[in-house]
Amino acid sequence: MYIGIDLGGTNIAGGLVVDSGDIIKKTSVPTDPSRGADAVIADILKVIYSLLEGLEPNVVKGVGIGIPGIADPHTGEVIACVNLNWYHVPLKDRLQTAIDLPIYIDNDATVAAVAEFSVAQQGKYSNAVMLTLGTGVGGGIILDGKAISGHHGIGSELGHMIVGEGLYDCNCGRNGCLETFVSSLAIIRYAKHLLIETPESLILEYAKGDWDQINGEIIFKAAMLKDPVAVKVIDRMVKYLAIGIMNTVSFIDPEIVVLGGGLANAGDFLLDKVKTTVEALKYFKATDCARVELAKLKNDAGIIGAAMYAKIQD
Amino acid sequence: MYIGIDLGGTNIAGGLVVDSGDIIKKTSVPTDPSRGADAVIADILKVIYSLLEGLEPNVVKGVGIGIPGIADPHTGEVIACVNLNWYHVPLKDRLQTAIDLPIYIDNDATVAAVAEFSVAQQGKYSNAVMLTLGTGVGGGIILDGKAISGHHGIGSELGHMIVGEGLYDCNCGRNGCLETFVSSLAIIRYAKHLLIETPESLILEYAKGDWDQINGEIIFKAAMLKDPVAVKVIDRMVKYLAIGIMNTVSFIDPEIVVLGGGLANAGDFLLDKVKTTVEALKYFKATDCARVELAKLKNDAGIIGAAMYAKIQD
Repeated sequence: MYIGIDLGGTNIAGGLVVDSGDIIKKTSVPTDPSRGADAVIADILKVIYSLLEGLEPNVVKGVGIGIPGIADPHTGEVIACVNLNWYHVPLKDRLQTAIDLPIYIDNDATVAAVAEFSVAQQGKYSNAVMLTLGTGVGGGIILDGKAISGHHGIGSELGHMIVGEGLYDCNCGRNGCLETFVSSLAIIRYAKHLLIETPESLILEYAKGDWDQINGEIIFKAAMLKDPVAVKVIDRMVKYLAIGIMNTVSFIDPEIVVLGGGLANAGDFLLDKVKTTVEALKYFKATDCARVELAKLKNDAGIIGAAMYAKIQD
Repeated sequence: MYIGIDLGGTNIAGGLVVDSGDIIKKTSVPTDPSRGADAVIADILKVIYSLLEGLEPNVVKGVGIGIPGIADPHTGEVIACVNLNWYHVPLKDRLQTAIDLPIYIDNDATVAAVAEFSVAQQGKYSNAVMLTLGTGVGGGIILDGKAISGHHGIGSELGHMIVGEGLYDCNCGRNGCLETFVSSLAIIRYAKHLLIETPESLILEYAKGDWDQINGEIIFKAAMLKDPVAVKVIDRMVKYLAIGIMNTVSFIDPEIVVLGGGLANAGDFLLDKVKTTVEALKYFKATDCARVELAKLKNDAGIIGAAMYAKIQD
């Protein structure tokens, strides 16, 4: 049994996860990162203690933590985490002074990929990639059954591959990152950009005229009804998502690429478009390349993945 | 001892390579791909036979072949090779009917990476990437000491990662591939594009006014003397090369990225610019990422790499 911690910008969610990947106990506290790293780390500890409460010693074998940024899995240092405003926080060392269990730390998309492929897909694929399409875009790479984070802990950051000239700069400071084309933030910004010229759109109707209410769900809903602005937004998103997937093929040629995160809730409407566009982008038409599928694991992927990550590293 | 075959568009070069990576015998015949695959395969066999001549049986342990395109290392099939006009040629099966030795086939840039990292860099790096900057751009990825070709044999094709909007379509049929920005063909085409507007340039002077004589060497020579057109061409090349390197970091975060191929002969002039641009593209300034270096192995990387590839697969 392992503890999985999903450290997010909003909540610190934790769970006790058995070896099959099922959660048997769950808890959550608000992160409130403005309090600073010390207070957040203290709350991570409280979450871990509350999960350990009442258990026999030695039942829990380790703790896995998924963080919304870049971590060095060798040292357990959080290198950079824009959402939390953490830079070079020695998270593992800080926790290790209070907990006598092995602690493993990696990026949240990497641990989500571990959850998806080890639990939901039952280890069927040993070379597999997950893209999480949320406010940002995360990536998780599994090669030969192992999560890849790279030599310095900065690999698997697929949202930051540069694929073109973006409408706005990425929060990493550069221009052209995949996440500035295919995240919910990206499609909201591009929709607003188009709505200035063409305000007659279902998007604004669904948002009740309130530009701040525009979100990914509304844009997809409008696109499904062929609203021209929404269709243009989604077509652009799909074009770059297909480029991101084909670049993944050009690098590591996985067996499968799985789409997760909030935008993947658009389901087959999104998936069908992506598959068609990926097929058109293949330059070796007669040869198979990665299947594209929606993630099977919808909830608690962060907690389960962090725990399973600890299990496979253990 | 292994035989390494470097199958190129111009020559079929082969060599007997001892385990240390030294070539003890070498031979070469023209490829002339217009003759068709059967004639070329017959000549590959002749090259192998001539290398085996006079040797005791069992001295040679296997044959490695680097091909200028996509091969499936599991089946030994050449999937696509634009230069040779080969599509789905079962190269290994065809050779295996005549040769009773293990045969291993992979992309030429992948085997060049094997030569560079196993021989020239003496196995110092287990996570490493090579980019070959020639007429096209090839990629070789070494992870945990093994060459990565992907699940379907179409990985490691770093020249085909899409990084922007190109001036012309790639010979793969798509737009925006890295090799349409950073190959010798790419810089020649971009230079000509600029020279139409600005013909007063050292580039045309060095080419004696003959547009067909413009090549990568001339462009670099002019850029070193600060010729404005040449500087613009090289700056654009370096910008996209740095993007390609940083995308490599965002995927697999190797310890080192090595630049080989004809354009790498520009040496420190190119390397210094690339390092500066890569540094500016880092979004985690305080953390190390891949060192960028010039390839150490200048000659016969194709032959040595193919042989060493056979050795490590054996």
